[in-house]
Amino acid sequence: MWSTIDITMMSRAIMLARRGRYTTRPNPNVGCVIVDANGVIVGEGWHQRAGGPHAEVHAWRMAGDKARGATAYVTLEPCSHYGRTPPCANGLIAQGLKRVVIAMTDPNPQVAGRGIAMLQAAGIDVCSGLLADEARKLNPGFLSRMERGRPYVTVKLAASLDGKTALANGESKWITGPAAREDVQRLRALSCAVVTGIDTVLADDPSMNVRYQQLGYLQQQLDEDELIQPLRVVLDSRCRMPATARMLSLPGQTLLVSCQAYPAEFMRTLPANVQCLQLPDVAGRIDLSALLQYLATSCNSVLVEAGATLCGAFISNALADELVLYQAPKILGASGRNLLQLPQYQQLSDLPSLQLIEQRKVGVDNRLTLKLGD
Amino acid sequence: MWSTIDITMMSRAIMLARRGRYTTRPNPNVGCVIVDANGVIVGEGWHQRAGGPHAEVHAWRMAGDKARGATAYVTLEPCSHYGRTPPCANGLIAQGLKRVVIAMTDPNPQVAGRGIAMLQAAGIDVCSGLLADEARKLNPGFLSRMERGRPYVTVKLAASLDGKTALANGESKWITGPAAREDVQRLRALSCAVVTGIDTVLADDPSMNVRYQQLGYLQQQLDEDELIQPLRVVLDSRCRMPATARMLSLPGQTLLVSCQAYPAEFMRTLPANVQCLQLPDVAGRIDLSALLQYLATSCNSVLVEAGATLCGAFISNALADELVLYQAPKILGASGRNLLQLPQYQQLSDLPSLQLIEQRKVGVDNRLTLKLGD
Repeated sequence: MWSTIDITMMSRAIMLARRGRYTTRPNPNVGCVIVDANGVIVGEGWHQRAGGPHAEVHAWRMAGDKARGATAYVTLEPCSHYGRTPPCANGLIAQGLKRVVIAMTDPNPQVAGRGIAMLQAAGIDVCSGLLADEARKLNPGFLSRMERGRPYVTVKLAASLDGKTALANGESKWITGPAAREDVQRLRALSCAVVTGIDTVLADDPSMNVRYQQLGYLQQQLDEDELIQPLRVVLDSRCRMPATARMLSLPGQTLLVSCQAYPAEFMRTLPANVQCLQLPDVAGRIDLSALLQYLATSCNSVLVEAGATLCGAFISNALADELVLYQAPKILGASGRNLLQLPQYQQLSDLPSLQLIEQRKVGVDNRLTLKLGD
Repeated sequence: MWSTIDITMMSRAIMLARRGRYTTRPNPNVGCVIVDANGVIVGEGWHQRAGGPHAEVHAWRMAGDKARGATAYVTLEPCSHYGRTPPCANGLIAQGLKRVVIAMTDPNPQVAGRGIAMLQAAGIDVCSGLLADEARKLNPGFLSRMERGRPYVTVKLAASLDGKTALANGESKWITGPAAREDVQRLRALSCAVVTGIDTVLADDPSMNVRYQQLGYLQQQLDEDELIQPLRVVLDSRCRMPATARMLSLPGQTLLVSCQAYPAEFMRTLPANVQCLQLPDVAGRIDLSALLQYLATSCNSVLVEAGATLCGAFISNALADELVLYQAPKILGASGRNLLQLPQYQQLSDLPSLQLIEQRKVGVDNRLTLKLGD
């Protein structure tokens, strides 16, 4: 069904789409390649930032007159609605494309097949489903938001080989090495939000931001002014957030989530880039499902960087999609602090289902990526 | 100083030596290559089993008359003493070798430079030190015995990603997968002794033997009748070993180590292949240094397969040289059983020093090899 040219061009469109992965949020990553009747690429582009032109627009601007009668390869169904930019389906029709090959339909309810229908109604030959699995991997967060109404959740963990995060006395600087900490900066740069618990804030007063100077090789791909700070989310059910917490004075947004109202005098001290959200509780703790539902309005991907209890709660409530575990080549012994609080399982078959999908050295440490769920 | 031919031939001798690694104990692994004046290999061999011919003998038998005027490459200094076989130094002289290249001197006090001296006294050109580091790696156990008076100790561990070996209720079959368990069989086949604690015996009644059928790919390199069962060592300070323990009725030797005398009636039930050893205690536990000193008389390498306390004791007493850790892609949570009991360290700088030297997938699990000490 698909020709070698089709596969080659869609692969290239997917590769192009990936270039936007630090900058398009909350929009999806999309790539587009326009190929003439001789199989020559005449235009290509990728979505670069929300509010800016879509991938198709970059591609047809580059192609100019050569778009007429050509084939467009797009990693996601062209949009059919007026958002911050006019519908790409209209544009492809106006540019005179003869054929449009789409990797996957857009699950966004504002599109959801309407883009394809518009193209077909205009007489364009539309084929869909080429490298769909690869195209889905471009946008785990966007697809999760659209299909499940919650962001894609990654839990970041760091421990010794025997699963300890600190000595019994709390000493933990540093379990992992500088390369792993740099890698965490890149994870944050990929994330729309970073979630932590109030206990971590009270213990460490973390910044929870992305430091451009600590992005390592990513500095070569991303300019400092393209960097988007993730939303910092603090789970603070009983309103213990200190007004002096370091992150409150940093650029970027902070969201304080509680199960009670913050006192008026505390609210008055907050700068404009700090919001407060009150959510229902479940047994005295913030309802994590409700939190994720709220975050889904603007966040594709959420990174949880928290202690054993909060990380364990995301996992045991089946609200975590992925674990990234940095393992330091150290052993701390049984008296050290545990990595994860989980329910007391009775059988190994009750354990969360994990699948190791990637493993690599990061400096002296090991980085494991595991998918949760079936 | 060394020619390309020298390096090539010693590399080959090292490779040959490795072929004996399941069968020569307690002797070292040794390889030998004899090369004529044209750089052509005329004889080669490796030590295959204790009591059998040494590597040099195999090589000069193959070379025959061509050994005269040739160069011999040997991974370990030729022996100078009458053991179960006559001294190889004498043989090399008698065969008319012109030059002998040695990777490393033999630390065995019965040799220790005397082999080299005998060769030189006979007018043979002797060079030593070629690929010495590589040659040392052939015989970590033999060298440890000779140089430190104790075997090389490997601690085998298996745990989840969060460092747990079982659920709180003890459920642990199976944390790791079948490929990892097969790999443990190969580790045992490499070991002169396997050490466990009485608590493990009472809990699991383990066989602690090597099952030829479970050796996987090693069956292609090793015949069933070449397989040497490791000495099974049970640390049983208070003489709790049951006369009905499974391992006591299996082929191969078992050593019961206690700090008290076993009752006479228990002793009478023991088959001839079970020995008892009484050792001094340290705070009520068997003195592990004394144990290793005892084992050094016959054991190059010791594999510790035990619980969190005994494994932790070898490590924290600086009596473990290597860890082999099988990590299952599972998380058990903080309530699970801990991998290692270690002293309660106050600073991360007090932790045992570890260096990751190998890492690979074994089935679904990860296998990490780490060196302990500096």
